[in-house]
Amino acid sequence: MSVDCVIWLDGEPTTNLPLPDRGLNFGDGLFETLLLKRGRPLFVEQHLQRLRLGLAVLALPDCLLTARRHLESAATAVGNKGWNWAVLRLTITRGAGPRGYAPPDQPTVRILVEASKLDRNCSQMSTPAGLCVAEIRLSSQPFLAGIKHLNRLEQVLAAAEGRAKGADECVVLDQYEHVISVVAGNLFVVRGGELVTPKLIECGVEGTRRRLIIDNWGPSIGLEVREATLGLTDLDDAEEVFYSNSLLGVRPVATLGERSWDSHRVCSALFQRILEEVT
Amino acid sequence: MSVDCVIWLDGEPTTNLPLPDRGLNFGDGLFETLLLKRGRPLFVEQHLQRLRLGLAVLALPDCLLTARRHLESAATAVGNKGWNWAVLRLTITRGAGPRGYAPPDQPTVRILVEASKLDRNCSQMSTPAGLCVAEIRLSSQPFLAGIKHLNRLEQVLAAAEGRAKGADECVVLDQYEHVISVVAGNLFVVRGGELVTPKLIECGVEGTRRRLIIDNWGPSIGLEVREATLGLTDLDDAEEVFYSNSLLGVRPVATLGERSWDSHRVCSALFQRILEEVT
Repeated sequence: MSVDCVIWLDGEPTTNLPLPDRGLNFGDGLFETLLLKRGRPLFVEQHLQRLRLGLAVLALPDCLLTARRHLESAATAVGNKGWNWAVLRLTITRGAGPRGYAPPDQPTVRILVEASKLDRNCSQMSTPAGLCVAEIRLSSQPFLAGIKHLNRLEQVLAAAEGRAKGADECVVLDQYEHVISVVAGNLFVVRGGELVTPKLIECGVEGTRRRLIIDNWGPSIGLEVREATLGLTDLDDAEEVFYSNSLLGVRPVATLGERSWDSHRVCSALFQRILEEVT
Repeated sequence: MSVDCVIWLDGEPTTNLPLPDRGLNFGDGLFETLLLKRGRPLFVEQHLQRLRLGLAVLALPDCLLTARRHLESAATAVGNKGWNWAVLRLTITRGAGPRGYAPPDQPTVRILVEASKLDRNCSQMSTPAGLCVAEIRLSSQPFLAGIKHLNRLEQVLAAAEGRAKGADECVVLDQYEHVISVVAGNLFVVRGGELVTPKLIECGVEGTRRRLIIDNWGPSIGLEVREATLGLTDLDDAEEVFYSNSLLGVRPVATLGERSWDSHRVCSALFQRILEEVT
């Protein structure tokens, strides 16, 4: 393990997960990825709000207060290290349990926090990304859509595809050929003076930045945001395309297959808007 | 952890998994559940065959020979403990890796083997099971159908539903309302002198015992086995229903909602056939 990565389990520094653990055995748990600026975690409330939803969906014990405390301790430790930018991955599992899929009646959750140093300067917008379209389709599972659970093989396979094709990111479609997102972020298209982002009913993750763009940042730069069903032709027809996630904020899209975009005006304005928010 | 459970990581006894691990982070890995009779793992070749397929689908390094060696060592250790019946869970993860979904180019897999004592006498067929139908539907993902990967939240949620309803097992349907399996096993119906089991194209796990029943055990008791698209009415219309998995062999179904079955003739004959195979 790199020295630029530190892990805590239930608040204690560790390099290990006790076994057995249902997070490993079944992906029975949740995670969040938070950006830290000089030891200050950004948009914690939004992350905890999604986590709260995930805990309810998976019927996990309400450990939000404890998770918040462990996040804060980890953030302080990161601040003391003098890391300028860092990322915290919070992982919550249903802990140990007897063999078999059925969860124990009284699970004891495990709360892991992993802090990693980021070498990138997150105050600068990333260079425009080259995208491909993943061959693997996201499966429809309305029970789990939106939350950030630990079952992420589809994302792993799509990311592997993207890297094999030399792309920076992959557009992922659902089984009806609707555009859902990129592998690690939510997609937005600019068209006719409005921002449009895919509806997330049957699959996809409801990103913290996606919600902030819809409710707050989009309108604050004069753009209404609409959730809609989108196909690949809607990307082709867009004046501008970008995606959002917790580490990049927003990142412009330069190309998708043959199509390319030169204008990143809206994305740049949003990035500036986010910067104001975090300084 | 119970004293009746022992774990090895890459052949060494352990109680911990080193972090980070992609098996935990994304469910990036595979597993197998093997029954052991007096330290002898049953149907190892069938388990390794499914594992081989899973390794290929997930583009994991070919670690079959090592996995086999670790299984054999664990089995010997179990035999030395004098456990009559035991279960080995083999878990293979893509190991450590940098942050993010994309797998490392040269992953170092981790091979975990967990041995647990079984108190049940597996030479006796289990009592007929009471089933319910799970509300959660299995999602369609042809890329991952058949293999036994670590993304098992759907099974966890269905098993929780079944327990809440007081059922022994749950019938799970796909999103087209086709019957796929039970949570931890493959389903079979007897009708008009033949055995029918659901096709597994878009979801479900290709059970080792399912394959043996289709290719070998079914015909050996005079029944052809057909894979077909089944609905709940096909279960209602069946003369007999049972399910198969590695630990139970086959288990008769007593009830599904209002429907009940008194005859377990075919299931009993198959169970005897399996017993002959393992003695």
